[in-house]
Amino acid sequence: MSPAPFQHSVRIYWEDTDAGGVVFYANYLKYFERARTEWLRSLGVQQQALREATGAIFIVSDTQLRYLAPARLDDELQVTVKALHLGRASMQLTQQAWCGPRLLAEGEIRIGCVDQQTFRPRRIPGAITSKLNPHEE
Amino acid sequence: MSPAPFQHSVRIYWEDTDAGGVVFYANYLKYFERARTEWLRSLGVQQQALREATGAIFIVSDTQLRYLAPARLDDELQVTVKALHLGRASMQLTQQAWCGPRLLAEGEIRIGCVDQQTFRPRRIPGAITSKLNPHEE
Amino acid sequence: MSPAPFQHSVRIYWEDTDAGGVVFYANYLKYFERARTEWLRSLGVQQQALREATGAIFIVSDTQLRYLAPARLDDELQVTVKALHLGRASMQLTQQAWCGPRLLAEGEIRIGCVDQQTFRPRRIPGAITSKLNPHEE
Amino acid sequence: MSPAPFQHSVRIYWEDTDAGGVVFYANYLKYFERARTEWLRSLGVQQQALREATGAIFIVSDTQLRYLAPARLDDELQVTVKALHLGRASMQLTQQAWCGPRLLAEGEIRIGCVDQQTFRPRRIPGAITSKLNPHEE
Repeated sequence: MSPAPFQHSVRIYWEDTDAGGVVFYANYLKYFERARTEWLRSLGVQQQALREATGAIFIVSDTQLRYLAPARLDDELQVTVKALHLGRASMQLTQQAWCGPRLLAEGEIRIGCVDQQTFRPRRIPGAITSKLNPHEE
Repeated sequence: MSPAPFQHSVRIYWEDTDAGGVVFYANYLKYFERARTEWLRSLGVQQQALREATGAIFIVSDTQLRYLAPARLDDELQVTVKALHLGRASMQLTQQAWCGPRLLAEGEIRIGCVDQQTFRPRRIPGAITSKLNPHEE
Repeated sequence: MSPAPFQHSVRIYWEDTDAGGVVFYANYLKYFERARTEWLRSLGVQQQALREATGAIFIVSDTQLRYLAPARLDDELQVTVKALHLGRASMQLTQQAWCGPRLLAEGEIRIGCVDQQTFRPRRIPGAITSKLNPHEE
Repeated sequence: MSPAPFQHSVRIYWEDTDAGGVVFYANYLKYFERARTEWLRSLGVQQQALREATGAIFIVSDTQLRYLAPARLDDELQVTVKALHLGRASMQLTQQAWCGPRLLAEGEIRIGCVDQQTFRPRRIPGAITSKLNPHEE
């Protein structure tokens, strides 16, 4: 896996904020997911096409997040993705959200590959594994 | 259709607000939909069961909303549903959101009945039509 | 106002979809707002800075939307903004969401300028009016 | 703290689901927060009133969630709240979401009390502490 984390930019709009005047904390899960989706896309994996071709979808099974500093309207965040571990049917990622030099939130996300009908775990398609982890294929 | 509108209660949480300190306007579409869902449920129509049994889903095709006054954290809204017109494959509803004596938002919503695979219009199942409009069955 | 509409790109993620397999209709209000925010930004108006400097915020008072075709996961939408009318304390815009050659949703949005404390209407700051409508300044 | 956990009911609507046909995982953070808000309300604490009276708001600083089974449209969840630890400026809670006999999601949430202007930690108001933990006041 690449040493430098993948990075995706997220702009903060009204929809993202709450009455505290800052970004609603649950929304960081959305930003982390947008970044993972773009990370997969950068590796050539489109989730809708994957689903139609193989019936496999990725689901989130575990999230651990720490919220360190607030973001506000108009802020532009940089959201990172770094793979920690790639298993046969799951992967563990670490992600961070930055606003300039300030770390706003960070956490670990576990993703599982399941069949879209049964939601039972299934092996991550080999075409994806080889893209995520070229040296172990 | 019943002369008194159906009424559903909605509590305002942090998730509903924005940095203006009030409810984010787009969320009224959610409250209106929750109220429509409960209105259908009160008539004996469960949308998930309907879908599994007939393949029919209701989609929203037109929304016209006016936002008149803000709601805040902890407010409890009363959201109404009143059917204006019931067609073969669509219906037109009028809905309002109140906080005590204050009218916060109101609008007209058009719903269409479509096939869940093709999204093509289809006749509203007779079992529903008869519940929505007993005199015309 | 410029003859060609302003355009902003929106990617569809899991957060945007619903169990119908398509984008949840209420989310188009969010995409329209993102596009309006970027349109204002392109004119040099930052809403958070505006608020801190003048106490003025823009609120949405009226939305009329028509949903014509569904968007799906991974789609990339082009969302347009075109000013229809610019008043002293409000403006009327027309907006569209396209996916390639398909028009997905369109509508009219009325925005009002209010004081952030009282929510009473106030004149749109002259610095903004002159940017939105250079010929009438 | 009471031995039996507080319980709050949450109905699943279209807005809650995603294209996988199930509840979007990030929404469990919303359901957990709704339940915490109702738990506080059941103890006589209204967050908006608290904020206006003292300037104190609760923010979420840490969330650890495990997603075990999917919920679907029309499901009715029971969401629990149980206080694990009550500190001077923060508290740790454990929460679960059930659909009938199935445990769907569970996790630990850390809440901090901060000043609404500075976001600096401050002591939880005594009137709340005594309600949350009558024996230690």
